[in-house]
Amino acid sequence: MSELRKDPVVERWVIISGGSQQCHEIPVKTAETKDHELCPFCPGNEHLCPPEILANRPPDSHPDDARWNLRVVPNRVPVLVVEEELIKSGEGLYDKISGIGANEVIIETNRHTLRQSEMEIKELETIFWAYRDRMIDLENDRRIRYVHIYRNQGCQAGSTIDHPYSVLMALPIIPQTLQEELDGARRHFEYKSRCVYCDIIRQEIQHKERIIIETRHFVAFQAFAPRQPFETWILPKRHSAMFPEVEPGEIRDLAKIFKDVFSRLDAALNFPDYNYVIHTAPFGVACREFYHWHLEILPRVSRPSGCEWGSGVYINSTPPEEAAQYLRDL
Amino acid sequence: MSELRKDPVVERWVIISGGSQQCHEIPVKTAETKDHELCPFCPGNEHLCPPEILANRPPDSHPDDARWNLRVVPNRVPVLVVEEELIKSGEGLYDKISGIGANEVIIETNRHTLRQSEMEIKELETIFWAYRDRMIDLENDRRIRYVHIYRNQGCQAGSTIDHPYSVLMALPIIPQTLQEELDGARRHFEYKSRCVYCDIIRQEIQHKERIIIETRHFVAFQAFAPRQPFETWILPKRHSAMFPEVEPGEIRDLAKIFKDVFSRLDAALNFPDYNYVIHTAPFGVACREFYHWHLEILPRVSRPSGCEWGSGVYINSTPPEEAAQYLRDL
Repeated sequence: MSELRKDPVVERWVIISGGSQQCHEIPVKTAETKDHELCPFCPGNEHLCPPEILANRPPDSHPDDARWNLRVVPNRVPVLVVEEELIKSGEGLYDKISGIGANEVIIETNRHTLRQSEMEIKELETIFWAYRDRMIDLENDRRIRYVHIYRNQGCQAGSTIDHPYSVLMALPIIPQTLQEELDGARRHFEYKSRCVYCDIIRQEIQHKERIIIETRHFVAFQAFAPRQPFETWILPKRHSAMFPEVEPGEIRDLAKIFKDVFSRLDAALNFPDYNYVIHTAPFGVACREFYHWHLEILPRVSRPSGCEWGSGVYINSTPPEEAAQYLRDL
Repeated sequence: MSELRKDPVVERWVIISGGSQQCHEIPVKTAETKDHELCPFCPGNEHLCPPEILANRPPDSHPDDARWNLRVVPNRVPVLVVEEELIKSGEGLYDKISGIGANEVIIETNRHTLRQSEMEIKELETIFWAYRDRMIDLENDRRIRYVHIYRNQGCQAGSTIDHPYSVLMALPIIPQTLQEELDGARRHFEYKSRCVYCDIIRQEIQHKERIIIETRHFVAFQAFAPRQPFETWILPKRHSAMFPEVEPGEIRDLAKIFKDVFSRLDAALNFPDYNYVIHTAPFGVACREFYHWHLEILPRVSRPSGCEWGSGVYINSTPPEEAAQYLRDL
């Protein structure tokens, strides 16, 4: 049984997943999955995963049969589970919560080897619809405060299986990074009565130097203070706190800008490992006026050292203005 | 010329070290340093580094000659330099500071291949004295707010050269992680009139289950909410906010507990890569009553994924109580 624990000083949460036999998002080892016949995410191997929660499949197909384009399944060894009871307890100074939540895998395609930059716009749209639908469904569980969806591409980014998949973690707490964004955005709103992200978008579009590409509904640019070379943010131009409120036309546009950005990153950095995350408003927090959902993309170009994890100060040798110029010119 | 930039929402600082030719703490590539004759940190190769700032050497030796036990030199390509002027400027929403500060390398021993667990107590003491002396010296520069000293052991931990060395970054800002610790410790002090770290020490010593070892002046235990398996903290029992105020008897005791802890970690994890950092009070912050310096040790057992960096929520499969038991029993 997992447990969430809070650092008593900095309020950072950790999930103790319990038992070194466990692993998260890792049904089998990478070495084994080089062969797609052994891959639990490949068509025909559906029995290697728990029953599907959601799928994009033809009307005449059946759940867990091999005819699908996208599937969402629970992690085989979930870090958090909905079946547990929410128990908050103390241990002297320390706080902990039982490991309730959800841990799902979004199998993005039925093809074993495919980078996201190579996917069709339609396929990418389906992935974003799946993210949205799972968030909406999980909001019904009142114990869940946040749905964290992220992507690990390649082993440098923490992936352990080749088949394209995203990970979903539904948490009974608000993650520290989100809390920091909410606090910062609230401070800005109290001072200026404006959304800080809307202000960032306006300034970036006006200054141009960090912009990679702009579409009707979205803008992609290099972060002003990037933790790694080529850290890229994609923001919707329309002020919206919650990713699940994205509209059909926006999803289509998001798929387009996403494919464009990843094609450029692949060309610039020779198919890098990367992570991306969706940052969206936690459930039950009144932040509609001042929070703004977005996508943060972090190519794994350099490895964090004691400088980064020990102080939170990142050293980055590539000015984002140069990175943006390079990506624009491709 | 480097530049510090602040994320406008979460107030995380990034150093843009400027120019992809630059590197921090890396005089030559690892591959080249397998041979100690090419290692810039080995005796006889002093000319490959800038002139030494501090050294532990016999009275009849000369600066930058080959007879030394420990040397502190500026990084060959420093990320931050004292020679620049402190300039704070804005760019619309964004804040930045010129890259003033210092970036030094503490060459811990004249032997090319040696783990810290294999060093003599006396050698470890010399390292801690060097940390202290450099902090005291750099405090004289009123532009410097914090001296971040950290250690990268092995390439998983961000090291790029085999010879044992620590890194010093003197910063014109208070790093985000330190600010979070100060804020948390202040909150606790305002509520309880006690130091949160003193409370943690008392509770850990009373509960015993996360303790690895206790000496006269120090206690080493597994963190309650560890980011990685075997995350270990060493705290002085005497309340003290500032590492530079450590006393001679304490330094000797610190060297002993340090060697003991690293010997156990090496045995338990088969000579892991690791980072450690010293967390100490920033200069000019009135936190003497509520802050408490300490050492945080993070073996690099697993690789952070999009879960960790995207949300600040860490997944750890090893309960710290089990890790502590294992380390105690060795």
